[in-house]
This record gives sequence, C-alpha cells and structure tokens, in this order.
Amino acid sequence: MKKLDKITPLEEDFAKWYTDVVKNGNLIKYGSTKGSVIYLPNSYGIWELIQNQFNKILKEKGVQNVYLPLLIPESLFKIEKEHLEGFNPELATVTHVGNKQLSEKLFIRPTSEVLFAELFKQSIDSYNDLPLIYNQWANVLRWEKTTNPFLRSREFLWQEGHTCHSNPLEARKFTRSMISTYAKFLKNYLAIPVVIGKKTPYEKFAGACSTYTIEAMMKDGKALQAGTSHYLAQNFSKPYQIEFKNKNNQKEFVYGTSWGITTRLIGAIIMTHGDNRGIIIPPKVAPVQVDILELFGDKSDKVKKTVNQLETLLSRKFRVRVDRSDKTPGFKASNSEIQGVPLRIEVGPRDLENDMVTLIRRDTLEKQLVKIDDIKNLIGKTLDDIHNNLYEQAQIRLNNNTIFVDNYEDFKKYIAQQKFVIAPFCCSDHAEIHIKEETGASSRCVPKEFQKPDEEKECIYCGCSSKTNRYVLFAKAY
Amino acid sequence: MKKLDKITPLEEDFAKWYTDVVKNGNLIKYGSTKGSVIYLPNSYGIWELIQNQFNKILKEKGVQNVYLPLLIPESLFKIEKEHLEGFNPELATVTHVGNKQLSEKLFIRPTSEVLFAELFKQSIDSYNDLPLIYNQWANVLRWEKTTNPFLRSREFLWQEGHTCHSNPLEARKFTRSMISTYAKFLKNYLAIPVVIGKKTPYEKFAGACSTYTIEAMMKDGKALQAGTSHYLAQNFSKPYQIEFKNKNNQKEFVYGTSWGITTRLIGAIIMTHGDNRGIIIPPKVAPVQVDILELFGDKSDKVKKTVNQLETLLSRKFRVRVDRSDKTPGFKASNSEIQGVPLRIEVGPRDLENDMVTLIRRDTLEKQLVKIDDIKNLIGKTLDDIHNNLYEQAQIRLNNNTIFVDNYEDFKKYIAQQKFVIAPFCCSDHAEIHIKEETGASSRCVPKEFQKPDEEKECIYCGCSSKTNRYVLFAKAY
Repeated sequence: MKKLDKITPLEEDFAKWYTDVVKNGNLIKYGSTKGSVIYLPNSYGIWELIQNQFNKILKEKGVQNVYLPLLIPESLFKIEKEHLEGFNPELATVTHVGNKQLSEKLFIRPTSEVLFAELFKQSIDSYNDLPLIYNQWANVLRWEKTTNPFLRSREFLWQEGHTCHSNPLEARKFTRSMISTYAKFLKNYLAIPVVIGKKTPYEKFAGACSTYTIEAMMKDGKALQAGTSHYLAQNFSKPYQIEFKNKNNQKEFVYGTSWGITTRLIGAIIMTHGDNRGIIIPPKVAPVQVDILELFGDKSDKVKKTVNQLETLLSRKFRVRVDRSDKTPGFKASNSEIQGVPLRIEVGPRDLENDMVTLIRRDTLEKQLVKIDDIKNLIGKTLDDIHNNLYEQAQIRLNNNTIFVDNYEDFKKYIAQQKFVIAPFCCSDHAEIHIKEETGASSRCVPKEFQKPDEEKECIYCGCSSKTNRYVLFAKAY
Repeated sequence: MKKLDKITPLEEDFAKWYTDVVKNGNLIKYGSTKGSVIYLPNSYGIWELIQNQFNKILKEKGVQNVYLPLLIPESLFKIEKEHLEGFNPELATVTHVGNKQLSEKLFIRPTSEVLFAELFKQSIDSYNDLPLIYNQWANVLRWEKTTNPFLRSREFLWQEGHTCHSNPLEARKFTRSMISTYAKFLKNYLAIPVVIGKKTPYEKFAGACSTYTIEAMMKDGKALQAGTSHYLAQNFSKPYQIEFKNKNNQKEFVYGTSWGITTRLIGAIIMTHGDNRGIIIPPKVAPVQVDILELFGDKSDKVKKTVNQLETLLSRKFRVRVDRSDKTPGFKASNSEIQGVPLRIEVGPRDLENDMVTLIRRDTLEKQLVKIDDIKNLIGKTLDDIHNNLYEQAQIRLNNNTIFVDNYEDFKKYIAQQKFVIAPFCCSDHAEIHIKEETGASSRCVPKEFQKPDEEKECIYCGCSSKTNRYVLFAKAY
C-alpha cells in the first residue's frame, strides 16, 4: 500500500481538490494515451452497481439489452449529415490493420444511432413489432480537446437506449418518461437532486428533434449534465429507411428516441457529496458499504474474534470489507475515509471491555459507541440515514444557489458567483452564443415547469418579447 | 414478427445448420462491417448471465474488477516483442481523429497485457501489495481473415484476468486454479464437459511461458477452445519494469498470469446442445427459462386467467416470458423452440377442463400433462433435469469419440472422421506444422493426466523417443 497523499481543501482550489480526490480514492490511474483513464475497483465498482440496479429498472420498462459493433463504416455514418457534422472532429478513425490500408475508413462509435438504425431496418416489419425498445451498455469514444477524469474522457462507458415507435405521441411520451426515470434513479440511488428540463435548440443533440436533460449542481456551483433523452422524430428513420406497415397496410417511417447515462455520474457523485477527506459514496452504489477495522488485533484474541463474527454477520446483507493489516488505526481510518466508504466499524480492545464497538458515519464523521448486539439492526438504518442526509444537503444547496433574475446585469453578477440563474430568454442561437462568450455560462435547460412560452417577459439578452421566450436555466458547466 | 426460416438438418450440413440456428434464434444480425455481428437479446442475455454468475465466482476468489482503455499506443505495445509480433497482422490501428493525423499510432486492444503491465507498475510497491488480482470485462478486436458468429469474430466480448505474484510457485498455482474454475463453470452453468490440459509450445499464447486450456467437443466432432489461462512468468514484468520490494527489501520482478473466457462460449452452447429445431440453452444461462404460451386465449377467460396466475407465480423464482399474441399454437411453439427456451407451458382450453396444462421440455421434446397445482414444484426440478441431461449427453459423446492411437495411419483415419485423437507426440514445432498441413488437425492440449513425459512411447509423427514426448490431444478445431 502506497502512502496516502494530502487532499487540497475544496474551498481553496476546487479543480485541484477534484484531482486529488480521484487520484487518492482507489478511483483512477492515468493511462498512457493522453486523456485516457483506468477505472480502479472503487470507481468501476460504482459503475457495476449502477449497471445492475439500473438494469432492473430498465427491465420493468420492457427494455431488452443488445450489443452492437464498436466500428462504424464511414459510408453508413454519413447518411445522416447533421449527425456526422456534429461528431466529425471527435471521431477516432481506423485506417489500417497491421500494415494494410483498409478500403474504407471505420469510425470508433461516438454513439450508436446509425448502427441501431441499421438493426431496426432489418428487424421491423409491421406495427406488431413496435414499440421496439433496445439498450446497450458499451464504451464510446469522443476525442475531446480538454479532458478530466469521469467528466470528460475520450473513452467513456455508458448505456444508450434506442427505441422505435409507430407514432410521434408515443415516442415523445417515452422520451419524457426516460428523463423522469433518470431523475428518480439519481435521487434514489445516487442521492443527487436534479433540475429536469428541455435543451434549447442550440444545445440539443446533433440529429435530435428535441433533447431532455437532467442537470445537477456541483459543490462549486457549476452544472453537470447527468443524463439526456432525445426525441429523434423521423430524423434517422427517413435517411436509414426504417419503415413499418401500419394497420392500413401502408408503409410509414418509425419515430425514434435515444437516451443515455454515463460514467460522468461518478464525477457527479464526487462533486455533489465529497468533502476535504475525499469522496463520499452513497450507500446504494458503494462497492464497500461497511469497513470493519481490526485495531491492535495482534494483542487481543477478542478483537480478532469479534471482527470475524461481525464480518460473518454483516456480509449476509451488506457489502463488507475487513482491514486486518498491521497498519496504524489512524492510517486505516484515513484509508476508509478517502475511499468514501459510508460506514466503518472500529473494533479495538478498549471498547470491547464493555462489549462495545465504535461506529463512524462517513458523511457526518459522527462517532457512536454501540453494543455489539445492536450493530446488526443499526447498520441498515444508518445507511438509509446517510443516503437521506446526502440527498437533503444537496437539495438545500441547489435551492439556496438557484436565483431568478430579470436583467442582464444581475445575470452576469450571479453567473460570476457560480450560481444557477433562471432568466427569461428568447432561445435564439445568436443570443446564446453571445451570452456564452460574455459570461462563460451556457443554457442548461428550460426547466419542466417553464416549458410553456412567456411572451410577457422580455428576453434578458436582447429585450425582445418573442413567442419563443422561456424561463431558461443558465450556469457555468462541466 | 418476421416468419421463421427453416433450419438445415445438422447431419446434412453442419456449417449451414450453425448459420441457420444463429440467424433464426433471436441470436444475431450481421453488422455492416465485414465480420461484425450484432448480439440480439437472446445471445446478449446469455452473456449477461455468464457475466453475473461468473462475477460471483471471481469475487469468492478475491478478484477485483477494473476497466482499462480501449486504445494502446504503439510505443507501449512494442516493448514486449514476441507479444507484438504475435498480434501485429490482426491489429486495428487508429491513425486519424477527424481530419488530423495522430502523432502516434494507436491500436485497438486485442488483449490488455501491456495496459495491465503499466497499471501494475504504478500500483505495486512491496510484497504487501501482492498478490494483486484484477479482472476486466471488455470488448477486444482481432482482425481475423475468416469469421463466424461467436466463434471467430473481429470484435468479441470477454473477461480477461491479470494477476501479479511474488513468486513463481504461487503464480503457477493460480494459473492452474483458474483453468479448473473455468472447467467447473462450464460443467455447472453451461452443461459442457471439457478436456483440461496444457498447450504445446507451438500453440501457446504469444508472450506466455505456458498456456492451459479447456477444450470442448462440438456435435460435429471438432474441438473448440473454450477458455485459457496463461502463466506469464516475468515475460511482461521485466520489459515493463513491474517490480516489488521483497521481505529482504530487495527489488524483484513480479510473476504474472492472465486468463479469459469469451462470447465464443455462446457458439459452444449452440454446437454442444443444439438440434434440428435450433439452439437449446442450458437453464442456468437461459435469458428466458420458461415460456408460457396462451393458446386460443381469445376464446376463454379461463385461459387468460390461468396464464396470468402462472406468470405471477413463476416469475418470483424463474425468468419467465408470456406469449399472448394471436399467432397460431404451432407458430408459438416453434418460436419458443427455435430460441432454445428450456421449458414451455402450453395453456389451452381443452387441458384446462381438467385443471391441467402441458409442460414441454426443449431437450427431449417430451410432453407432460400436469395439474396446475403441481406446476410450481415441478419447474425447478425439471430445469435441473434438463441441465443434467444436456451435460450427460455431451459427456457420452465426448467419451465415445475420443480415441487413443499409436501410429500415424490410425491418427489420420480418425482425424478424417473428426474424432478427438490422443497420441504420443514429441511436441516439436516442426512435427506439429507438418501434421496440421497433412491432416488439418492441430494439437489441442496435453491432457492434465498426461503432463509427465512418456519417453517409452514413440512420437506418432517422427518416431523419436524424446523426453518431450507426451500423450497429446489432436483434433480439427474451430
């Protein structure tokens, strides 16, 4: 075990804090290709738990998992022009195998719309085959210029769902239901509150008709797009010729959706819940939920025996790890904290004289002397408390740092303070580009409750009273 | 739902039979890049169940899952020469991003030894950090010239385990323990018997010191390599400088192993258990274990009610699917059979008059009229019976088609009949290359029980009595 490094306080330098946390929490190592990252057990374990638990939710929604190829031939990709243009500068391109040049360029998938299009074309015959609801868990590549572990990596892991429907109403409804499913998942499993909304035309996905998003607030006040759901209309079914016979035996193009969450969520966990001791992992996705630390075990048979008993007892219901090493109690505690384990039990000879052990919560750092007989019942309840506390703290922060403004001066002031700013806005590309240049903020979404136009309020940027005016959430973003 | 195609009888044309089975069993579609395959729910579901169940076994062995980058820089790959030379003709190479040429070629991983080497170098300090036992589930690419779904695809999915140990004994022991773990997994979960053995020098993995394998017999008598475990010695730790401080505080290079199973196993399932109606999926990895078919449900409320009751009852314990469509009973039955669902329950008005339903096993096609009240207890037992029967049939076939020979004439005769042939052999590259040219057979392994030399037996090819002589298993292979 290498020595634990110090973590820069988050109040001092948030970016440095983040880097220190990811490097020290058994979360990542850097790979040798620039911008590539190795997921160590403590971060990959979070992703596996997200996968397992989200798969159950998907199954209840009638989703079936499939797996499509990594490589997309250029000829297939360029059938949908807006989509290709959106991704082109980020596409990693295979041109050779061994020393031989290929007859056609192959792109490493940045997303799989065009592959799914090809699959759907082969699979759909009539309305009886619809809706067709597929999902895949996969790695994708986008050659980002600046990278940051979890938040913006050239390769990332995600789930991408792709569906076909016989009519636009059903497809739109499915698009919206997925964004709600994501919001609920983040609340119930990651303890992260979000703002649900719709992207402006400028920020929507290349190739989509409309994009819904969930936006979370990080501890520095910046926004993180945590999941998206796109209504594709017939944008892919027309160029890729995905047709079905309707009940009148006439051919129609299907209506599509796609939706995804990624390993960014691990970055969201760190920056929503982390503190100056490192990451704090919400219990439901914590690879280790309970650390049992054997303190001075070499001097006491009773300590060893109790540790073994607790391990057997708790492993049945929780993800438990035991540290029996000969390291100091201080090192063991720091190691557990820096890895964000939600609960730890310290078993030492002094407490054991009274048949007690010490239970320490990672979120509040609260210590509690507990009778050994009471431990079993306490763990489940305390893990729930930790989840609820993490969520509540994040919700309070989100509420306290979201501000409504009606003029551009206030807008600039609060954006400079890294707040979430909601303002009436005309949603034009032109205004959006200028606001970004002038303030560094981007539109995050039109929150759910403001999706009806509000012509009476003047756009904070151009002063117009357009029927495209909406209350729009702006923020600096990851 | 498109029409089900006919399956060519396996006795008539085994290769055509295989293609028909994979195309019709909701298993694959072909992608648009040559040699690329789309895994549909029925095959990807098998892989997910393999993953989930094998992960539990890995966890018990102290294995931790990680995830490493897809792309390997050329400079990193070429540090170990034998390894690079072995893979070079099959390496898909990224040279461009968008329109820009990269300063260094990047290879899509064909396996991740060199990436793990880099990770281990960063992670290991002293003997306290050993053994270090990592695994990853990932996609890899090898540009095969001829391809066949599941068996030989350019992209495939696998698990690759990589470990570091402080001494060769422990590493060798771990290598062997993994090959036994694979053999046990295939027996207990896929109902596939295997021959465990060691590869000859000519057939071992590029970069390994020794390679262990499990070889299964397909229904046409050919061998399929179903899993491998490599003892890497210090072949990677020396060039990649993976050192640890031993108990005397001296630096030493670690001893490595690597081991993997792949989506080939789905091909192995098809060709071990399949019949002229399609795939038969062993119950433990069947995405659907029980199909409930509602027959003439529109005419009878009782049918619908019973189907709903059975679904609720059985879904608690088994993976259940219900076909409530208005298709014919014959179509529904064929559809269930072609997808290899181990058990189906047909619920029709005539049987229901006596409170009975019909239970049909996919392996024996045996039909049984069963009282509804007895169904619940019968399902679990029958699924076990199916597993055991599939295993037993395969074991009998393996035994009956494995032949010992002591001369090259018999050798050629039985190889031509597509048997597993065990013969004394000197294990020289030269003899092995000639045998392959002359008979089409390759050495599969030195079976476990024959790994001690047998100098008394003359090599069937060159007649020598060398101390490298072993009884070696030969066969034509996938």
